[in-house]
Amino acid sequence: MARLDRSLIAGASAFAGLSAEALDEILSRAEILRLLKGETAFRQGEKADRFFLLLHGRLRVTRVNAQGAQILVRFIAPNDLFGVAMAIGAAAYPGTATAATESLALAWPNASWAELIATYPSLAVQAMQSLGARLQDTQDRVLELSTRNVERRIAGAVLKLARQAGRKTDEGVLIDFPLSRQDLAEMTGATLHTVSRTMSAWEAKGLVACGRQRVVVRDEPGLAAIANSDE
Amino acid sequence: MARLDRSLIAGASAFAGLSAEALDEILSRAEILRLLKGETAFRQGEKADRFFLLLHGRLRVTRVNAQGAQILVRFIAPNDLFGVAMAIGAAAYPGTATAATESLALAWPNASWAELIATYPSLAVQAMQSLGARLQDTQDRVLELSTRNVERRIAGAVLKLARQAGRKTDEGVLIDFPLSRQDLAEMTGATLHTVSRTMSAWEAKGLVACGRQRVVVRDEPGLAAIANSDE
Repeated sequence: MARLDRSLIAGASAFAGLSAEALDEILSRAEILRLLKGETAFRQGEKADRFFLLLHGRLRVTRVNAQGAQILVRFIAPNDLFGVAMAIGAAAYPGTATAATESLALAWPNASWAELIATYPSLAVQAMQSLGARLQDTQDRVLELSTRNVERRIAGAVLKLARQAGRKTDEGVLIDFPLSRQDLAEMTGATLHTVSRTMSAWEAKGLVACGRQRVVVRDEPGLAAIANSDE
Repeated sequence: MARLDRSLIAGASAFAGLSAEALDEILSRAEILRLLKGETAFRQGEKADRFFLLLHGRLRVTRVNAQGAQILVRFIAPNDLFGVAMAIGAAAYPGTATAATESLALAWPNASWAELIATYPSLAVQAMQSLGARLQDTQDRVLELSTRNVERRIAGAVLKLARQAGRKTDEGVLIDFPLSRQDLAEMTGATLHTVSRTMSAWEAKGLVACGRQRVVVRDEPGLAAIANSDE
């Protein structure tokens, strides 16, 4: 395998503040993984034996319950750690990570985690903060599901993705990875039918423009007004 | 202040595996806090300057959104760490912790956290696992809110509390702290009216017995059948 350059991971907050030598050592334990669209890094219930850092692309993490109902837990963005099941004491991956677009990730064997934490305690601090941020996000989602109607929830999800992964185009802010209506349904606890009906109504009002797996926010303030409206 | 005995914290998983000397040192930095029912350990938005371990009692953590809608995030049980905002990189407490019953907690100044983590790395590992467990719980809640009807969600919440804090009585399994219908509404994204109607129907069927802030599970398999039913 070709030697990996430390610039690959220098931008990841998990490794913030580490020396060049530390980054080199961490990289030396990693292997690189290419995922074509639709391929998985791991599946729910599989023994968790590796953890990952996304370098490029976008992954969709989904989770199903015993009845087969599915939610979209989150999208993984470049520089995010993921699959850290062992860090949270889980023996199996609690969800399935699928490439939403062609992606590149680094993978480390779990055994490296304890060694890395012992050598670089700042890694634990960063990992805890990133877990904390995910916990806050998930609690926000509970709050939204408990108190907001479905149109507001869809508006909130689209705005958040536009802020996280938006790219300015002539048409508006393009969410820069393939995003289906089914994804939005699984992110907001809505049916596919409701998402389709809502997006069509917004398109007619000039709030968004949609294509196959493609969403452009044309009127962010207009969408924000829906997301933040009192019922 | 009287010297605290290390047996106070020996049962907390956060401090698992630490030596007697370590427990003594950790305790020497803590102050003890007594909360009467209804008193708060901290409020949402307040500067997070302390973190806590519950010794005795039960705390309710709630969170409100900008529109004033409230959810019940979780109940804190004895031996749980809470208010660890600084560990997850938050400057303010993301929720309000109120004593559901008279409670006793230890409080440490935030400055102790970094020092303790540096001295006892196992504390970081334990804290991360406990955050991870909360993240999984919260994701389960998103899944339930997205896919289960309200009666199943209420049944799931009551069963979970009975398992976490149940005490066998002649009548059945008593949830051993004051639990109101409003609490259940804020845990499940239901209205107070729906919770009251549902609990009354279950009472008539002999599944539960209710009093003021008091819930007894009389027929756990019956309630589990509701929680796990297909719609």
